[in-house]
Formats: sequence, C-alpha cells, structure tokens
Amino acid sequence: MITLVHYPLSVASRFTRLILGECEIVPELVEEKFWERREEFLMLNPAGTLPVLFENEGAPICGAWAVSEYLDETHGFALAERRLLPPNAEQRGEIRRLTEWFLVKFEEDVTGYIVEEKVVKRQRARSNNGSSAPDSRLLRAARLNIRTHLAYIDHILEQRNWLAGDRISYADLAAAAALSVADYLNEVPWEEAGEAKVWYMRLKSRPTFRPLLADQLFGMRPPEHYADLDF
Amino acid sequence: MITLVHYPLSVASRFTRLILGECEIVPELVEEKFWERREEFLMLNPAGTLPVLFENEGAPICGAWAVSEYLDETHGFALAERRLLPPNAEQRGEIRRLTEWFLVKFEEDVTGYIVEEKVVKRQRARSNNGSSAPDSRLLRAARLNIRTHLAYIDHILEQRNWLAGDRISYADLAAAAALSVADYLNEVPWEEAGEAKVWYMRLKSRPTFRPLLADQLFGMRPPEHYADLDF
Repeated sequence: MITLVHYPLSVASRFTRLILGECEIVPELVEEKFWERREEFLMLNPAGTLPVLFENEGAPICGAWAVSEYLDETHGFALAERRLLPPNAEQRGEIRRLTEWFLVKFEEDVTGYIVEEKVVKRQRARSNNGSSAPDSRLLRAARLNIRTHLAYIDHILEQRNWLAGDRISYADLAAAAALSVADYLNEVPWEEAGEAKVWYMRLKSRPTFRPLLADQLFGMRPPEHYADLDF
Repeated sequence: MITLVHYPLSVASRFTRLILGECEIVPELVEEKFWERREEFLMLNPAGTLPVLFENEGAPICGAWAVSEYLDETHGFALAERRLLPPNAEQRGEIRRLTEWFLVKFEEDVTGYIVEEKVVKRQRARSNNGSSAPDSRLLRAARLNIRTHLAYIDHILEQRNWLAGDRISYADLAAAAALSVADYLNEVPWEEAGEAKVWYMRLKSRPTFRPLLADQLFGMRPPEHYADLDF
C-alpha cells in the first residue's frame, strides 16, 4: 500500500501521481496545504516540500528527487521495456536533466509564481480575511517565461519523439505535470505552441492522466479545455 | 577520463568533487563563471547550472542530481561497503532527502545569498566597473538562516554517527560542501556549533577534502581557520 501526501496543484506531486499511474499503482492520496507549514507535516518532512510517500510501514520518502528514484528502484524494473528511467547511464542523465528542468526551473520561472499568486494567496485570504489580490508584475513575468519553456519543448521535439528520446520517460511526465498545473490556471498560451501541443495531447490521452484532469479545487474551476482531450 | 565543469565556490560543484575524491577519480577541472551565462556554456547545459560532467567522449551530464546519480551508477558499486549511496531503498531515500536539503534549501537560505553578495557582485564589478557593495539585509538573513541549519545538523548528529546513518554518504558530502563554501567566506559561526563542528572536522581531515581546502579565489583569501584541520 502506497500513501502519497500531495497537493493537487503541486507540480512535483502531479509528477509523482503520473509515475504511480504508469506503474499501475493506485495510491491513497492525502492532501496537504503545504503553505500552512503545519507542525505535523514538518515532522514528516522538515523541508516542508511535497510529495511525501510511504510504502506500507516504511519511513517517509521526501521530495520529488528521492520519491522518483525510489519508485524507479522499487517498481521501475517491473515495467521492463516501458521503464520510465531506463538502465542506460547516459540516457538516465538526460532524463534527469530534463526532469530537474521542469520540477525546478519551470517552477522558479512559472508555476511558483502563478500558484502563489492565484491559489495560495486566495486560500490564505479565506482563512484570515486578508487580501487575495495577485501581484500582476509577477504574473506578467510568469507569462513571459512560459513562452520560453514552450519554445524549448518545441525545439526538443523537432529532434525527438519524446522529450528525452524515443520513449516516454520521467522527463515527459515532469514536463506534463508542470504544464498541467499552468493549464488548470489557464496560463498556457496554447495558440503559440507547435509540437508541444501535439505532444501534450498525446500525454493527456493516457489513462494515467485522467485523475489529474478530474482534480477540482474548491472555488476554482479549470478552463473548459483543461480536461478536453481534443482541445 | 572525467572532466568536470565547476566553480570553486559552487556548493554542487564541491559536492561532486568530494564524490569523485571518494571514488578515487581525479577529474580534469574546467572553471566556469556560471553567472556570466556564456553562450558556449549554455549550449552544454541550457539550465546554466553547475556542475557538468563528461566521461570520455560521452554526452554531458548536467546538474547535481543527474551527476551524483550517474557517479553512483557507474562508479559507486566499486566502492563496495564504502558506497556513498548504499543499495537499501529506504536508506537511499533518507540520503537523497538530506542531499537535496543541503544542495537546494541551504543554497536558498544561505550560500545563494552570500556567494552572490560577496563573490559574484565583486567579480561583476571588476568586469564592468560597477558597484560591488553587498546588500547587508541579505547577508543578515543568511547569517540568521545558517544558525538554523547548524542546529539541524547538531540535532541529527545526536542520534547518528553520520548524517544519514552509520556510514558516510552523499548526505555528509553535500552538507560539508555547503558549509565549506560558507566557511571560505567566513560565514560559519563555529563557536555556536556543537556536534556539527566535530563532524565537520572529521570530514575536513579526509584526503578527499584537501583539494577544496587548497582552493584560492583571485583576490579573496579564506580566513586562517578555513584550511586548518584542527580549528
């Protein structure tokens, strides 16, 4: 039995849910509002980051790096040819580079800003009657940055079928998780995307993506195209 | 033959140099002033992060996550009992959690500020005659934050011999790399550290630490205790 402490609009959490899906594991999901920094949660993971994974009675595995490597080591081999972090060392290097790109750089450039400004501020305001007005300068920065990322995905897909090569890998799942968070908040300029849009539709059509498309945040609906497989 | 693109005061670069040292690999070091974001360097690693590692004619392996896992996969097993990321999955989870802590959280809280304010600003000023005055508020924040990290190391070492358990691991190398950067810039309040100081002295005495203690930045000497094994 696997338990995953997650938040629906956390990129690293979604990345992990996609890995679990590809491994055909249905986790028990426990939602954590990470920005509240609850003492109980910090006891589990002092860094306060998501996701945190437990398998059976095991110790908590904290953060996307540790969790994704753990899942490869404990469940990845069972995927055989479909392994998401295949055994070739150089290939693994390229997959990890891109995974880090979308979990860290995309987060710093795009999702960090939009989730904070559009979601966290609103949630905080609801609990303490404060202001929930997003900082428009930060949203503008995020909107500029996401274009560079979409262009980078387009650029990679000119040479490759999937982001890190011929097969789907952690790199695709991390990138799709990142874009899906931005898309839920209607912040992906799809009209400017080329190959990236086709590639994202392929990912979105996978059965493993369905639970993400069904996510509903209290009081915040995604745009209509969000769950549309043929947008 | 391994080539490592690094910067002497980059925590992730030092972490990698320590791993290579423990593996008894002497890399060819190529210094990169990462803040210059040279086009040639961004061609190698579009994220612009350090380190970047090449083995023989292989593709570049970019960033601390990919590089450290690569070195474990290609050279770690040769260390047998001394493997820095030993084969037990839960143990690996704990090592990766702490490694990420010191490479990411410590960097955000401490070394990111002090390296930018004390080193990068000065280097930039030298090339364009600008101001090199460090922002004292940011240095104050870093000085406050490092105390929390030292206390966390002390806390862990109350229960364990090394950070992630009974043996030295990537977690210790990442933490020592982080502290050694702060120490070069005389920003570790050693007089307030307890077990953390004893543990750091043990690491500093290892032969693999010597090249780091011999680093000399142009125009910036470390404090006298920096290379002293018995400080």
